[in-house]
Amino acid sequence: MEGFLLFNSYKMEESITELAFSLNTAWVLICAFLVFFMQAGFGMLEAGFTRAKSAVSVLMKNLMDLSFGVIGFFFIGYALMFGEGNAFIGQHGFELLNLPPETAGIATGAFFLFQAAFAATAATIVAGAVAERTKFLTYIVLSFLITAFIYPVVGHWVWGGGWLAAKGFVDFAGSTVVHSVGGWVALIGAILVGPRLGRFNLKKKKDFTGHSIPLATLGVFILWFGWYGFNSGSQLAIASSADTAAVSLIAMNTTLAAAVGGIVAMVLVWILTSKPQAGPTLNGVLGGLVAITAGCASVSPIGAMLIGAAGGVTVFFATVLLEKLQIDDAVGAFPVHGACGMLGTLAVGFFATDGGLFYGGGMKQLGIQALGVVAVAAWVFVTAIPVLLILKKIFGLRVSRVSEETGLDAHKHGVSAYPDFNLEGVK
Amino acid sequence: MEGFLLFNSYKMEESITELAFSLNTAWVLICAFLVFFMQAGFGMLEAGFTRAKSAVSVLMKNLMDLSFGVIGFFFIGYALMFGEGNAFIGQHGFELLNLPPETAGIATGAFFLFQAAFAATAATIVAGAVAERTKFLTYIVLSFLITAFIYPVVGHWVWGGGWLAAKGFVDFAGSTVVHSVGGWVALIGAILVGPRLGRFNLKKKKDFTGHSIPLATLGVFILWFGWYGFNSGSQLAIASSADTAAVSLIAMNTTLAAAVGGIVAMVLVWILTSKPQAGPTLNGVLGGLVAITAGCASVSPIGAMLIGAAGGVTVFFATVLLEKLQIDDAVGAFPVHGACGMLGTLAVGFFATDGGLFYGGGMKQLGIQALGVVAVAAWVFVTAIPVLLILKKIFGLRVSRVSEETGLDAHKHGVSAYPDFNLEGVK
Amino acid sequence: MEGFLLFNSYKMEESITELAFSLNTAWVLICAFLVFFMQAGFGMLEAGFTRAKSAVSVLMKNLMDLSFGVIGFFFIGYALMFGEGNAFIGQHGFELLNLPPETAGIATGAFFLFQAAFAATAATIVAGAVAERTKFLTYIVLSFLITAFIYPVVGHWVWGGGWLAAKGFVDFAGSTVVHSVGGWVALIGAILVGPRLGRFNLKKKKDFTGHSIPLATLGVFILWFGWYGFNSGSQLAIASSADTAAVSLIAMNTTLAAAVGGIVAMVLVWILTSKPQAGPTLNGVLGGLVAITAGCASVSPIGAMLIGAAGGVTVFFATVLLEKLQIDDAVGAFPVHGACGMLGTLAVGFFATDGGLFYGGGMKQLGIQALGVVAVAAWVFVTAIPVLLILKKIFGLRVSRVSEETGLDAHKHGVSAYPDFNLEGVK
Repeated sequence: MEGFLLFNSYKMEESITELAFSLNTAWVLICAFLVFFMQAGFGMLEAGFTRAKSAVSVLMKNLMDLSFGVIGFFFIGYALMFGEGNAFIGQHGFELLNLPPETAGIATGAFFLFQAAFAATAATIVAGAVAERTKFLTYIVLSFLITAFIYPVVGHWVWGGGWLAAKGFVDFAGSTVVHSVGGWVALIGAILVGPRLGRFNLKKKKDFTGHSIPLATLGVFILWFGWYGFNSGSQLAIASSADTAAVSLIAMNTTLAAAVGGIVAMVLVWILTSKPQAGPTLNGVLGGLVAITAGCASVSPIGAMLIGAAGGVTVFFATVLLEKLQIDDAVGAFPVHGACGMLGTLAVGFFATDGGLFYGGGMKQLGIQALGVVAVAAWVFVTAIPVLLILKKIFGLRVSRVSEETGLDAHKHGVSAYPDFNLEGVK
Repeated sequence: MEGFLLFNSYKMEESITELAFSLNTAWVLICAFLVFFMQAGFGMLEAGFTRAKSAVSVLMKNLMDLSFGVIGFFFIGYALMFGEGNAFIGQHGFELLNLPPETAGIATGAFFLFQAAFAATAATIVAGAVAERTKFLTYIVLSFLITAFIYPVVGHWVWGGGWLAAKGFVDFAGSTVVHSVGGWVALIGAILVGPRLGRFNLKKKKDFTGHSIPLATLGVFILWFGWYGFNSGSQLAIASSADTAAVSLIAMNTTLAAAVGGIVAMVLVWILTSKPQAGPTLNGVLGGLVAITAGCASVSPIGAMLIGAAGGVTVFFATVLLEKLQIDDAVGAFPVHGACGMLGTLAVGFFATDGGLFYGGGMKQLGIQALGVVAVAAWVFVTAIPVLLILKKIFGLRVSRVSEETGLDAHKHGVSAYPDFNLEGVK
Repeated sequence: MEGFLLFNSYKMEESITELAFSLNTAWVLICAFLVFFMQAGFGMLEAGFTRAKSAVSVLMKNLMDLSFGVIGFFFIGYALMFGEGNAFIGQHGFELLNLPPETAGIATGAFFLFQAAFAATAATIVAGAVAERTKFLTYIVLSFLITAFIYPVVGHWVWGGGWLAAKGFVDFAGSTVVHSVGGWVALIGAILVGPRLGRFNLKKKKDFTGHSIPLATLGVFILWFGWYGFNSGSQLAIASSADTAAVSLIAMNTTLAAAVGGIVAMVLVWILTSKPQAGPTLNGVLGGLVAITAGCASVSPIGAMLIGAAGGVTVFFATVLLEKLQIDDAVGAFPVHGACGMLGTLAVGFFATDGGLFYGGGMKQLGIQALGVVAVAAWVFVTAIPVLLILKKIFGLRVSRVSEETGLDAHKHGVSAYPDFNLEGVK
């Protein structure tokens, strides 16, 4: 009898462990689905924030960076990021071969999928910045290289057991790993490709306002929704009280930072221009979301609101700065993802807490955070600049003047986004 | 050996309980995400159902009632609704301080998030009714007050252990608590702000049709999707066979009521105008969804269809009635949320069942349901009217005639929703 | 003491089983919600791919095939598909009466809901093919008959224990059961209703390009998102390591096939027309998704990419073929769902594996797959053709020439989809 009970007891323990494993995997899968859906958000946001004559071109870039992104991450990126290797780069698991069935406490396939969605996010950030004048093929190759190489190396440093992880760098869901990487490539791309024709030509001041605020707003709502998967899924577990508490705090912090980011940006633009403008407000929400991404698991709700507020301010002034510098980032990708990504990463040093407020990790943690921010920026510069210069030689970065004036949609993709509508300024 | 087995047995029991707790929390979190996503649905619906020249203004109101809504609910609303207190109002838990880690069988953070999404839903219902002529600042302050005060008090009565709960009032997912509250404020707002210029001027009959049926339809599909979270999440549990049966029935009833609501409204408008019009049909779907919200856990599928059908009829005739009364509810917020919210709450008295059909709780239950409906309406009247009158004194309710004619987007938000398109009737 | 432990042990075993049951049910419910959300994707895709003057009509058809679809499946379809019966058809469970509380290891209500969402998917595929000229009432009756009769019979053959299941036919998530059925009805409908006026009139070559590529792209992103529910949910379980591995592989394969389908279709149209066109690329993504649906649980990731690639190629050439044959399938419903549905079903014979690549089931399995494909096609032909011919007699299939020229929206639904915009070619 005792033997039976003992056997039974072992079997049940195993069943319980298996159930927890299954619940964790299910959670990460659902979150991965949400992160993939963010691509719809990016697509609508970026199309909405650019001109009608380039909408197809923007959307095709979004769809293709996702498509090439998952392929690049499957064959190469995952291995560089999570494969065994050294402090700098992983070297095993190309094509997902020879992997154990379980990774980080969940099914390996689910872990891969979640990470692939992240990689595609890093890549797609670039699309908006360089919109309306960048060559399609060049963009596709760049996307592939981001997910296959540039992003995974940073990922290895922080999440794959690399040197930044060893130093104690904290970036819970990727303010730096995902958003800053995308943001820096976006900035470099916007500079190297150059501004859209007429964008900073004061004589012929043309309106470069986004062509559909409803689509852009939809994009922000979808991104907000998907961000629950992005941040909450990064816990990679939910099957214990500790994990439920962590995930709930993460989701709450994400919500509060988004709300405050939008409010602060709106108030700011309202005060400075006497109009509560939609564009800056929408980007303020996103700035709050990007900023809370690094610290969502380690700050208090009040800390999250302060980080969100800082995100709203940062996104606003970074946008002004780029305009001053005559850098044409068509949708504000660098202000949102680059600037707020850095901000959020540094904020972990100030706001991380064990329940109280303003505890933080002290100056030492702040130093580590700053080191990570700088190192990642440096890495993106030394990889993305050569890549773009080589691509410039091979394919060129920029479409012809005629293409750009006519609109990339009609000239390059053979179709208008809105053939039944009379568009202004489109021939 | 026996001691070991006993210890193990206790430990395993604990693990099983913890797993159930985790699964329940995960379920409510996912549902909370879906309810937040409903904001995208409201945004698209309300923008689509109003004119192109006000689309930005409508969307900004949506985004801001969500943003201020979660802040208001975090600092004040949650405490008034769920904090310990008396039969009328809660008094503890401001800023979520001093709360236990567990509430209603799930992690407190998850419970808060789900409830915050509900509060934001109540607030956002108003945006559509008063669209295209209401002052932005006034609207924001009103939103904040709804989620911080008006809504939570009702919530306390019904879901926070207040006097209506004690009487046996049944409103499972909030036909009255959420939708009627929003609907009544919408009606009061529409009346006090007054109709849009030209709306009831027979000489200059202008077209006030929504400017984008595709966006409005998208909104309805998103709301339908989000409603699964709204209703199914309200069970607050799924980790037992009884809970899975309940949640499955809820989701099924939600689906059937939505479908029948749309069908009945469409047939009605088809018969009466000889055209199956999109607007009334879309609102019929929403009417079915609002109506089933109170009773989704306690009626049979056939009951759900009947309630959905009643919702479709109600939304149609309530719309006609408002038009007769020359009350300009721009998107039909009161017919959908107010009228069908009442209907659904009363319907619980008729259709609630223990498996059979038409059992109901008898006249007594019906009386309690009616009492709740009336009490909530009275509460909203005695709070929202003074609030709006005070706001009128301080900020004014309505934009200037010039603003309204030009369009709030261009005049107040400094941008057109569609700058690349030639819009009719927009200067 | 031993008795206590034994009792406890039994109780705990039961609790563990119940938890697994609950997690499985929760998983299927979430997936069902995602599949219902695909209706938004179909709506946006089909509206975006047709002309602005018919957008309302397309969307109303989508909304109504969903609404009548779930009703038809509730009262009749479910019983024919899953009720006890013979090898050809089920005969019990009409109106869901007298069903056990548990089906296929989950709560029956959840199982029904998931299946109802599938039935509505099969129906809605038709809407796009026959868009812009089909009578509304005729379409509604057809939709009802698909979900109440045509689809469930096929479903019974394959998933309800019918004769194809007995033969070993493999169609994991419905390349044939759902997509081919919808695709064949779409093709038959497109042929019987005839092409839109001017579609193949070479003298008056009119532009029949979709009126909103952003909406269509949004539709594809939503469908991609919903497909995770469609394919992953079809495992009907996730509460064991084996199930998590299966579901993870399914989701991964779905992603890779979608990505490669889009890439291959884009490369193809780029090479052949020198322009990376949006329409064919978007349909390529969908072709990849449809193609992987049958084999997503039984092929390797590389197999999934090859199947996705084949889907991208198939959708492209099937579209060209229909155009050659002057069959006007307005959105490419047959190429996507019919042709790729068949392809994906046959591909299981080539690519199914037990871990290795290209193992397949040999010629015998291929033969069984082909038999299923042919039998289902035959069934749809012998049911849909008579149904449509009878409907033609009773209601007519096609609107009047005036209606079609004016646009179904203005003429039949009493409203324009975009009243504030100047539309070209719309009077």
